Amino acid sequence: MNGEKNGMAYDSFKVKTFDLKTGKFICILNQDDSRRIGITSLDRVELINPKSKKKIVAIVDLTDSMVAKNEIGIYDEVKEKIKIKQGQVIEVRPVKKPECLKLIKRKLKGEKLSKEEINLIVQSISENKISEIETAAFVSAVYIHGLDLDETTFMTKALIKSGNKLKVKGTVVDKHSIGGLNGRATMIVVPIIACTGLKIPKTSSRAITSASGTADSMDVLANVSLNIKKIRDITNKTGGVIAWGGAVDLAPADDKIIKIEHPLSLDPEGQVIASVMAKKASVGAKFVVIDLPVGKETKVKSMEKAESMAVKFIEVGKRLGIKVEVVITNGEEPSGPAFGPALEAKHVMKILEGKIYDNLAQKSVELSGAILEVAGKAKPGKGNETALEILESGKALKKMKEIIKAQGAKITDSNKIPDAKFNEKIKSTKAGEIIDLDVYSLAHVARIAGAPGDAEAGLLLHVDEGRKVKKNDVLFEIHSNNKRKLDAAVEYVNKNQVFEMEKVILKKMS
Amino acid sequence: MNGEKNGMAYDSFKVKTFDLKTGKFICILNQDDSRRIGITSLDRVELINPKSKKKIVAIVDLTDSMVAKNEIGIYDEVKEKIKIKQGQVIEVRPVKKPECLKLIKRKLKGEKLSKEEINLIVQSISENKISEIETAAFVSAVYIHGLDLDETTFMTKALIKSGNKLKVKGTVVDKHSIGGLNGRATMIVVPIIACTGLKIPKTSSRAITSASGTADSMDVLANVSLNIKKIRDITNKTGGVIAWGGAVDLAPADDKIIKIEHPLSLDPEGQVIASVMAKKASVGAKFVVIDLPVGKETKVKSMEKAESMAVKFIEVGKRLGIKVEVVITNGEEPSGPAFGPALEAKHVMKILEGKIYDNLAQKSVELSGAILEVAGKAKPGKGNETALEILESGKALKKMKEIIKAQGAKITDSNKIPDAKFNEKIKSTKAGEIIDLDVYSLAHVARIAGAPGDAEAGLLLHVDEGRKVKKNDVLFEIHSNNKRKLDAAVEYVNKNQVFEMEKVILKKMS
Repeated sequence: MNGEKNGMAYDSFKVKTFDLKTGKFICILNQDDSRRIGITSLDRVELINPKSKKKIVAIVDLTDSMVAKNEIGIYDEVKEKIKIKQGQVIEVRPVKKPECLKLIKRKLKGEKLSKEEINLIVQSISENKISEIETAAFVSAVYIHGLDLDETTFMTKALIKSGNKLKVKGTVVDKHSIGGLNGRATMIVVPIIACTGLKIPKTSSRAITSASGTADSMDVLANVSLNIKKIRDITNKTGGVIAWGGAVDLAPADDKIIKIEHPLSLDPEGQVIASVMAKKASVGAKFVVIDLPVGKETKVKSMEKAESMAVKFIEVGKRLGIKVEVVITNGEEPSGPAFGPALEAKHVMKILEGKIYDNLAQKSVELSGAILEVAGKAKPGKGNETALEILESGKALKKMKEIIKAQGAKITDSNKIPDAKFNEKIKSTKAGEIIDLDVYSLAHVARIAGAPGDAEAGLLLHVDEGRKVKKNDVLFEIHSNNKRKLDAAVEYVNKNQVFEMEKVILKKMS
Repeated sequence: MNGEKNGMAYDSFKVKTFDLKTGKFICILNQDDSRRIGITSLDRVELINPKSKKKIVAIVDLTDSMVAKNEIGIYDEVKEKIKIKQGQVIEVRPVKKPECLKLIKRKLKGEKLSKEEINLIVQSISENKISEIETAAFVSAVYIHGLDLDETTFMTKALIKSGNKLKVKGTVVDKHSIGGLNGRATMIVVPIIACTGLKIPKTSSRAITSASGTADSMDVLANVSLNIKKIRDITNKTGGVIAWGGAVDLAPADDKIIKIEHPLSLDPEGQVIASVMAKKASVGAKFVVIDLPVGKETKVKSMEKAESMAVKFIEVGKRLGIKVEVVITNGEEPSGPAFGPALEAKHVMKILEGKIYDNLAQKSVELSGAILEVAGKAKPGKGNETALEILESGKALKKMKEIIKAQGAKITDSNKIPDAKFNEKIKSTKAGEIIDLDVYSLAHVARIAGAPGDAEAGLLLHVDEGRKVKKNDVLFEIHSNNKRKLDAAVEYVNKNQVFEMEKVILKKMS
């Protein structure tokens, strides 16, 4: 604590509480008082409850109206931390900037950071000791200067340290897809792998910019908000689980960093690798297959970029004792025809039920095969065969039902998955050939229709690339439980038809 | 507005108001609702009051407790903007990220920005259209990649455009000091210059890290919170004014950028130049002298850095039609013996009253001489002579009293400036020579004693560099109106004596 002492004496203020949770340690001072005690906006002060002697360092917000002179405003977090109430006296003392800010500044200058330094930054983010503004500067620095392999490994380890760890019996494997926009291969891969005796406790995200995340689609069939104990028990019992990562706190610092990265869509390679690998290490994975979809609308835009990223994933894995295999896939083509939680879940179940075998099924088999080979469950070159056999035999479907039941089954059958109240078919206005399907725009139309919040909303393709269509052939259906949203989606498709539709669906017709 | 439309339909929420002013357009949604409408933390939504049809784009904060499902939390800013009340229905629709964020990302990538692009960023900051996190990313990008001369000029013009403009009769001159830690030469320069018929409407800052800012010291003698009309009238009448810049809004976007720069002490050269030059242009200055103190604790650390910065100041000035002269000064030596608002004001008045002529008086005369020469009021090489004559004749004192009166005089006489209730003399513990005075530490001691909030608090040197002292000679006095703070300052000096005092005051004794 010595670094935070700078000889300043305390000033006393009267507490004014605001019933707000901000997730941050903030206090609000009057502009005149701030001048009197010699601080400014975003400075740190130490707050002491003179009765309980409890202390906290908070970041200062200034106001000319919310609190009067000699008053200090505090929210729930500070109130609870130092056990203070409305009207009580609090002591306030300016403190120096935390050491961590110097490290962020050094990273801004392009310097390399040590293991201990990255640890301190991650810990400070995790414990809310630095503000979002300061975190944004760190994220910007990492975006511009990158993290080298050492730093990426330090970052991974620091993220692991900041969160919960899962411990299950047996050999744990995992898969991760970096930014695919539809499909839900995970929901096919997990049951296939779980059939082989390997453990695959998969935590997945919900949709942020897509029409569904794996957690959203699995949510249609079962409960996905599982705590770490439930995940452990279900994995031990069935071999696999498909849970929402947001409920597990495997890497809370990472969640905060991702939040800050979001507005500017910053996803510095080193941070993405650390984020993924930390979560894999936290579930105890020893073998991991990373799916890198490459395409103009996915995170990884070029094959060169994908290859260089693959090398780093493998090396960081090595340093963590995890064997990583990276498969680079085509991110420009839709993985299956469905966009939206229920539509994607239904399509996945149909594949497991043996009713459909398409590019999503094929991709799932290949990913499963890669996992089986890397984990030594299949001989090199024989993984796909083994995986396909598990899928075609119905074993994968049986396992999926077992997992769904263990997660508190809602639906176990593709034909029990409800349809949206409304749907509208979009037809071709001329004859021609489907040259290019723009996955990003299809996902956007599904979102306008209400996905992922409206689970049944979304889009279902009737065509795939290369398909010849006649005038009035159905290109896709839009589903929604909200007539207004369905209309908005149809309107978007129509309005953008001349200019956008060519791009959305039919890049060229001939 | 087309860029913000993306076809999404509205969802309805019930308004829950919070009586808070945040200075930002924020709304608070429940985590479950955010998933339902497909947005996440820090996304933008358009809020519509269906009755008044008033709209605003707000940034989303998520909560799991502050608002219930189907509720939306809003603060005063949004409430007032769209005229909505507690319990009313509000419509919410996700909108795309503003164009401005793409520009910030391009700057992060190291690209150059055009005039229109920098304008859009500054305007977005000024109108609170981008969050502090996003502004932090921009500031970080500028810190790392810099602004070239074109960009610095665009930034300067954009800042000018964002704020108020001062229009006074006659030829306006100005001075600016980049980060000196004590002295208040401004309070001597302004009356000298105002005596010559030139107009010098000086806006100054309050202390952030020092023991006093010019606005704090002038505040001891007169009212410094003047609006732009008052500044204009007083300047037209007396020729000069010494006001607090914070009350004028000459460059509100700049104030916001400076706030974000503060926690990490980011002060990218281009931004500093744009910030200074925008304020000079906004007061209509045609001739400007920039004082660049160089030293290890000042903003500019080396002579090379100062020279390269000087060239840029001059060039940007040229492009704005402002003749700039840069004087590089020694920032390692204190400018006079006083640290603290009243002590510095008293010392300045003594110089104007002809009771003292020291290095601060000399610096003020030289700065005034430079202004007179650059503005053509003195022949090259004759500026100092003219300035000195004005100071020694008592004309500058008379003018200062005139200015003080026009600003609502509090005190016009050095011996009327009150002393603090308590003071303590710090004596030398051994004989020797004062090799080095550490301005930064002296300012810090003054701050512990209560400066600048306690106007009479501070530190007064009895010695200067090179002075031979005997044991028990007084080195300096510490003043304070608060016994506890005085004790803390004395304790700081004593505690740091062995290790720090050598650095603070007596680097070497021989």
